[in-house]
Amino acid sequence: MTLIIRGGTVVDATHSYRADVLCVDGRIAQIGPDLAIPEGAQVIDAGDHLVMPGGIDPHTHMELPFMGTVASDDFYSGTAAGLAGGTTSIIDFVIPNPRQSLLDAFHQWRGWAEKAASDYAFHVAVTWWDESVHREMGTLVHEHGVASFKHFMAYKGAIMADDEILVNSFRRAMDLGALPTVHAENGELVFQLQRELLAQGIRGPEGHPLSRPPAVEGEAANRAMRIAEVIGVPLYIVHVSARQALEAIARARGEGQRVFAEVLAGHLLIDDSVYHDSDFTRAAAHVMSPPFRPREHQDALWQGLQAGHIHTTATDHCCFCAPQKAAGRDDFSKIPNGCGGVEDRMSLLWHYGVTTGRLTPGEFVQVTSTNAARIFNLYPRKGAVEVGADADLVVWDPNATRTISARTHHQNVDFNIYEGRTVQGIARHTITRGQWAWCDGDLRAQRGAGRYLPRKPFPPYFEANRKRKEQAGARD
Amino acid sequence: MTLIIRGGTVVDATHSYRADVLCVDGRIAQIGPDLAIPEGAQVIDAGDHLVMPGGIDPHTHMELPFMGTVASDDFYSGTAAGLAGGTTSIIDFVIPNPRQSLLDAFHQWRGWAEKAASDYAFHVAVTWWDESVHREMGTLVHEHGVASFKHFMAYKGAIMADDEILVNSFRRAMDLGALPTVHAENGELVFQLQRELLAQGIRGPEGHPLSRPPAVEGEAANRAMRIAEVIGVPLYIVHVSARQALEAIARARGEGQRVFAEVLAGHLLIDDSVYHDSDFTRAAAHVMSPPFRPREHQDALWQGLQAGHIHTTATDHCCFCAPQKAAGRDDFSKIPNGCGGVEDRMSLLWHYGVTTGRLTPGEFVQVTSTNAARIFNLYPRKGAVEVGADADLVVWDPNATRTISARTHHQNVDFNIYEGRTVQGIARHTITRGQWAWCDGDLRAQRGAGRYLPRKPFPPYFEANRKRKEQAGARD
Amino acid sequence: MTLIIRGGTVVDATHSYRADVLCVDGRIAQIGPDLAIPEGAQVIDAGDHLVMPGGIDPHTHMELPFMGTVASDDFYSGTAAGLAGGTTSIIDFVIPNPRQSLLDAFHQWRGWAEKAASDYAFHVAVTWWDESVHREMGTLVHEHGVASFKHFMAYKGAIMADDEILVNSFRRAMDLGALPTVHAENGELVFQLQRELLAQGIRGPEGHPLSRPPAVEGEAANRAMRIAEVIGVPLYIVHVSARQALEAIARARGEGQRVFAEVLAGHLLIDDSVYHDSDFTRAAAHVMSPPFRPREHQDALWQGLQAGHIHTTATDHCCFCAPQKAAGRDDFSKIPNGCGGVEDRMSLLWHYGVTTGRLTPGEFVQVTSTNAARIFNLYPRKGAVEVGADADLVVWDPNATRTISARTHHQNVDFNIYEGRTVQGIARHTITRGQWAWCDGDLRAQRGAGRYLPRKPFPPYFEANRKRKEQAGARD
Amino acid sequence: MTLIIRGGTVVDATHSYRADVLCVDGRIAQIGPDLAIPEGAQVIDAGDHLVMPGGIDPHTHMELPFMGTVASDDFYSGTAAGLAGGTTSIIDFVIPNPRQSLLDAFHQWRGWAEKAASDYAFHVAVTWWDESVHREMGTLVHEHGVASFKHFMAYKGAIMADDEILVNSFRRAMDLGALPTVHAENGELVFQLQRELLAQGIRGPEGHPLSRPPAVEGEAANRAMRIAEVIGVPLYIVHVSARQALEAIARARGEGQRVFAEVLAGHLLIDDSVYHDSDFTRAAAHVMSPPFRPREHQDALWQGLQAGHIHTTATDHCCFCAPQKAAGRDDFSKIPNGCGGVEDRMSLLWHYGVTTGRLTPGEFVQVTSTNAARIFNLYPRKGAVEVGADADLVVWDPNATRTISARTHHQNVDFNIYEGRTVQGIARHTITRGQWAWCDGDLRAQRGAGRYLPRKPFPPYFEANRKRKEQAGARD
Repeated sequence: MTLIIRGGTVVDATHSYRADVLCVDGRIAQIGPDLAIPEGAQVIDAGDHLVMPGGIDPHTHMELPFMGTVASDDFYSGTAAGLAGGTTSIIDFVIPNPRQSLLDAFHQWRGWAEKAASDYAFHVAVTWWDESVHREMGTLVHEHGVASFKHFMAYKGAIMADDEILVNSFRRAMDLGALPTVHAENGELVFQLQRELLAQGIRGPEGHPLSRPPAVEGEAANRAMRIAEVIGVPLYIVHVSARQALEAIARARGEGQRVFAEVLAGHLLIDDSVYHDSDFTRAAAHVMSPPFRPREHQDALWQGLQAGHIHTTATDHCCFCAPQKAAGRDDFSKIPNGCGGVEDRMSLLWHYGVTTGRLTPGEFVQVTSTNAARIFNLYPRKGAVEVGADADLVVWDPNATRTISARTHHQNVDFNIYEGRTVQGIARHTITRGQWAWCDGDLRAQRGAGRYLPRKPFPPYFEANRKRKEQAGARD
Repeated sequence: MTLIIRGGTVVDATHSYRADVLCVDGRIAQIGPDLAIPEGAQVIDAGDHLVMPGGIDPHTHMELPFMGTVASDDFYSGTAAGLAGGTTSIIDFVIPNPRQSLLDAFHQWRGWAEKAASDYAFHVAVTWWDESVHREMGTLVHEHGVASFKHFMAYKGAIMADDEILVNSFRRAMDLGALPTVHAENGELVFQLQRELLAQGIRGPEGHPLSRPPAVEGEAANRAMRIAEVIGVPLYIVHVSARQALEAIARARGEGQRVFAEVLAGHLLIDDSVYHDSDFTRAAAHVMSPPFRPREHQDALWQGLQAGHIHTTATDHCCFCAPQKAAGRDDFSKIPNGCGGVEDRMSLLWHYGVTTGRLTPGEFVQVTSTNAARIFNLYPRKGAVEVGADADLVVWDPNATRTISARTHHQNVDFNIYEGRTVQGIARHTITRGQWAWCDGDLRAQRGAGRYLPRKPFPPYFEANRKRKEQAGARD
Repeated sequence: MTLIIRGGTVVDATHSYRADVLCVDGRIAQIGPDLAIPEGAQVIDAGDHLVMPGGIDPHTHMELPFMGTVASDDFYSGTAAGLAGGTTSIIDFVIPNPRQSLLDAFHQWRGWAEKAASDYAFHVAVTWWDESVHREMGTLVHEHGVASFKHFMAYKGAIMADDEILVNSFRRAMDLGALPTVHAENGELVFQLQRELLAQGIRGPEGHPLSRPPAVEGEAANRAMRIAEVIGVPLYIVHVSARQALEAIARARGEGQRVFAEVLAGHLLIDDSVYHDSDFTRAAAHVMSPPFRPREHQDALWQGLQAGHIHTTATDHCCFCAPQKAAGRDDFSKIPNGCGGVEDRMSLLWHYGVTTGRLTPGEFVQVTSTNAARIFNLYPRKGAVEVGADADLVVWDPNATRTISARTHHQNVDFNIYEGRTVQGIARHTITRGQWAWCDGDLRAQRGAGRYLPRKPFPPYFEANRKRKEQAGARD
Repeated sequence: MTLIIRGGTVVDATHSYRADVLCVDGRIAQIGPDLAIPEGAQVIDAGDHLVMPGGIDPHTHMELPFMGTVASDDFYSGTAAGLAGGTTSIIDFVIPNPRQSLLDAFHQWRGWAEKAASDYAFHVAVTWWDESVHREMGTLVHEHGVASFKHFMAYKGAIMADDEILVNSFRRAMDLGALPTVHAENGELVFQLQRELLAQGIRGPEGHPLSRPPAVEGEAANRAMRIAEVIGVPLYIVHVSARQALEAIARARGEGQRVFAEVLAGHLLIDDSVYHDSDFTRAAAHVMSPPFRPREHQDALWQGLQAGHIHTTATDHCCFCAPQKAAGRDDFSKIPNGCGGVEDRMSLLWHYGVTTGRLTPGEFVQVTSTNAARIFNLYPRKGAVEVGADADLVVWDPNATRTISARTHHQNVDFNIYEGRTVQGIARHTITRGQWAWCDGDLRAQRGAGRYLPRKPFPPYFEANRKRKEQAGARD
């Protein structure tokens, strides 16, 4: 299977240059000017476009069973939509119920994911603790290619990890060379605020952000980082949405701590006015956690991305249709949490990031692809335009525009939180493992073409972190 | 009972001026130049000295049952030592066992305190939660003059308050107009670190600071403030010892939050090298929590005091003699936590604060007396040199020196953590409720002369805070 | 001349209590409950109102010759308007031209000020440097009661003080015990931006804020503080208007530096949208420097006031009527800079500060009166309700409202930047040196009744600062 | 001319992998496993070593005429010493005298540099201002490949750039797409402090740091960034040595500003105790500006490097021998400022950076080479191991050690500020433009083999910055 991209400008995390890219059997075989066209090769004319690493969305929830329903995009429809937008890999989440075996859950998710159209990896959530969890974390790392574990500091009474779980799991991850990640919201405060708001008669979607104010996130982010600091383990904070959390991250990093942060396209672009929409369906469609925030937070998040305090962009793609959202019509705390976006992230980041001068094209590649690959130890197999890397590529037209709409998107959901926005910068072609999956409007994604991406523990920053801790220990 | 102080310079929180002070029946009756000497009055010649409000130590633990033993200074010996150093009021702590009635504990402590030689008030600790605690907090505020509640975020498995307790108790305090206070250390981390250090064979006092690194305090301080922010209640943080906690306080205050902070004389002056003393007895004598910190923290704390981020100075006076400390000879986590200091705080603050130019004399009065009175709603009965106020006064010689020593101090403990320091600035005379309790070396403290100080809820800053919260609520 | 205020609640910087206040011969003679009414005394019934120290506005420019015209409020009309609003003292500015003798200028201003209706002091500006300036600073301090010097870091080509002047003058002030103050804007940047904007054809009032962006103020504030730090002198920063300057102040204070800051009522309340008013007259009426800022800055300034990073509130009262402002009709840089406010500051601070819960009544007194008195060494003669203090008092109705308007104000200017705002909290009566100058709408100010307030150098914080510097020098 | 490096592990800014590297005619021709050895090729056996981009030292002063003498390392000896340590490019400084034509000075330096053994580029200093300077900046950019300009904020009375020069030059650089850089110290304060210290009789090297305290640097760094912010131009700050400057950089970057920073190896490793050496020669050998700082600053600088607030490492290599330094025997302000280090930087960064876990090997490459290449628009010609790049490579033994000494170094100076330090991580072989210039102790540098590196203006971040400024302008 051979495919050649001709005439484009390769843009990766560090520079850009004119070159053709030859893909053979799913890998990049050659990069250079004026490559010969092998016989039988598919040819993509990149024209004046850019050839970049396909996007990596490190935070999705396909077909997630959650809050009594199941997310409407499954591993096929969700990854196909990603391909339409230039995203060629996702990292999804295995979320065991408390008391459920981590391995059982892992196999369950692996089964669901077999229908995926692009490659995928998994974070596994630690939602409870005993010796078996400790043991199965090891099995997952050593035998199943899991290199990151997730912790929900919210969702009291369900999957919340309290300090005892956090401390035990972070310690275990440290020993295993696996990266702990956290959803940072103080679950106790959310619980109390929900109860109080409902008691006060605030039952609509406007109650959602009131029950999860920025301080709730800032607190939890800081707590997770301090625990990681004491244990000496690197940490990744998912979906930073609040200035307070960002500031805590900047402080920790400024003291030399290895902390990584992720921001969602939605938190960069949407403010909390959406929860005051008089139409319940529209307001509920925006219910996710953390919620969208007042404007000042968007400004702060962009600055954090520019400053290098935030490293990756994601979507937390987790779709629920209006009938599903309706479960919380009389009680905002029962609205299934989640929004889509896997299809639109790349265009949104180009439009609001590159055309505004906040990001260079190279920085765009870093925050949409390369950094995620490096942090989650998929690099340079993913996230690079390099001989030997997987042929996951997007041919990007930096000047073309499209208008986002639920009527035209490929996501299996009846609402798009970016509805009506016209964005500049679109995927003309998407290549996944050398397959031409998106061709200027024609979605050719193949059910089941995606592969699970096993990952190794101990990425380079982990090793540095270990040395650092030894030295600190010696000094203290 | 009449007493007059002649010829001194009155120094209070705002200014200084030459005046005589006449005390009648325990109160200040007149202030002015060249007052007539009433017949039969005791006369103190203040010479060139300063006449200031007696010190208030808002953090002491007299005869506390703790870690299997009882603090060696009782309410009499401890308050008498305070008088010798110029301190005329303490605020001590009622600490119920989990499941113990708060009221029962309160009465227990009231009984113990009847022997006190100076006035005293009580904070009451909330160490567990159910409806009866909620109810008894109300009773304490409405019927017993308790206006502040304490929460230990450390001491897992004993008196630790987890987030659920904090949230419930802070909310209740908000409604009652009582000030929540916290001992800020993440108990889960301390617990784990203790276990690990002991497993590694680190069993001596050097393990104590390793088990409670600054991040543990910074985390908890930040968490308590964020919880208070969400609930909208003012907060007081006891014994700030670490730069990280101070920075969190400065941030919260910089955002307009009503947060007050206390620093101990010890944390301002002693560094963590004491834990490496080869003599167990000496090292163990310094074991308290939070522990003494590396030098940089002392610098930061002084700056915080100068900047107004820290408002009060205290001692956490809680004495244990060598035989008591010996309980932890083979396991640092069993060394009873606590050090003395109620007698020395005023001189230490003058010497290291005023003679160095860090504090003006007026600021000295604020941080040793007035601020505590105002925060804990004892002002102007305490903390002021004003007609009608309690005649709690100290005649201060700003130039005289004394050398601190366990051999000469009045505290009932066999060790002084300031041993051998020569300090400038000493109490020549101390007056408590108009009684001449300390006269240039002669301690005339009377067992049982002290009175319980009932306090009202809703100090002025509470009212402002309530309005603020209403407005924030309206805007959010 | 005897006057008694009966039945009110005295509120000062530290507490509040019911008391009558007796004023005799311009001073407070007695404070206490139910005082006897002396024969012939004027009686003011304070009802349920508050009795507070009269306001001190530490930043006014009465009849200032500036930008080719003269400010329209003279020392009489301006101070009279202050009395109508509860302000009983101002500190105005002597501003010598470059090369003009400081003493000559001082006498010029003293002459102008003789018509004042309330007391006044002077800051003297240092606008150039040579040996005579050095010498005359000494004369002003030692013989004329000047204890603070002003430096304009803006106004290139006119009165701007460059680094060389700042360094020399701060050093001299340090030796004299006088407080240096700065107007913090980088004059070079303002100059260049004005030139560029005009070259681009931006000539209307909207160009004014563009020529003085927040960075220009943040830079200068930081520079002045660093120079003061190196020299070891305390510093006062006038009219802080930008978050960036405030943050620099908070940092310096957080490191223990003695820096004081002032905010104008206008900068707390008005945003930069005023410059986009299509009516030139209205837009120009708001031209002052620093300009009004985007909303986020107001939020920050209030927080700074609450946190204690900002100590005083002022107005920079400097009125120009529409015909004067018209000089800049075709060139914003020629619009005379200045707005009024001396009459409204107290009500604005009560309404937006106290009724919102940002400030307690005691804090209101601090930031409108007491702090200015203490910083500028007028305390306790001014800024206190205390026996022996000047009888400068305001009887404050915390609940009454009034609507601000140029049609009804007593300021000699045809515009009021707070026009139409209804504020809660008004001066019922104002007493200046024991004279009843404002009686519930009846302005009885007397031309020439005010007195010059000579001040001593070396306030207490200066002494502390000196010790501190010695110690730092010894350590470095 | 063909050379092949076999068996090593290539480490670049993003990853590491086993590969051979073939160099032909000065460029990298092929990278891959098990490459065939071309006939006649020189072969380097990399064993288990690392193959990395040669170091770039972006801050050197070879044969600089300064303070009445000339730096002792000339372009040949200095670049040869660099090659011995693994550094293959330098960026030196053309420093015109005030009133000297920039072009004349540029040609003067170009002549001196012809003897260089490795490649070099030039920054040109702007030390004065008039229309000819404005014009010649354009000529330098358009015709001579200069893409960065330097500004000394110190050295009053000599080459100091005041605000007027800074504003004009930054604006011009913005238009030209050239990067302004600053030496950040407030020259006025240094001037005054020098004068005062000398007047106090402090004449020895200990006066040097006293005359340039950290506040002096923090002030200037902040000022330069604020000016750059207002103008909208990126900025590069050379030799950050003080926590205060670093904090200002972190703040500016945190607000999204394009600011880059450099740290010297010396400031990371040496503290100010060196100035108290009783041996004048030793103390004077450390005199450079900014001076070495107290310990806390080293900690902060390392954290800044780890956090990404600091991007490049340099040396400010500028050697003076003892007889030259002796010019300031009686007056520290006359000691020629400068220290060596171009030979040792790479080993120092590996030893103190990588072996301690502060940096990963990839981060080492970034801060010693790649980042400088990208910031100064030399990438990927320099700073990358990539086909087509210049064959500037170092074969690095990460485990071998060497002891630094003036007795063995190749720098033409009689002192080494790292004397006696044994460092792990050494250059086994250095290749410059495909020439084998250093072979395990054998220095084969060729006089005149180096080439001038012309650079283009408008690197990618400049373009982004321009868009950003347009948007900000539109919004403001």
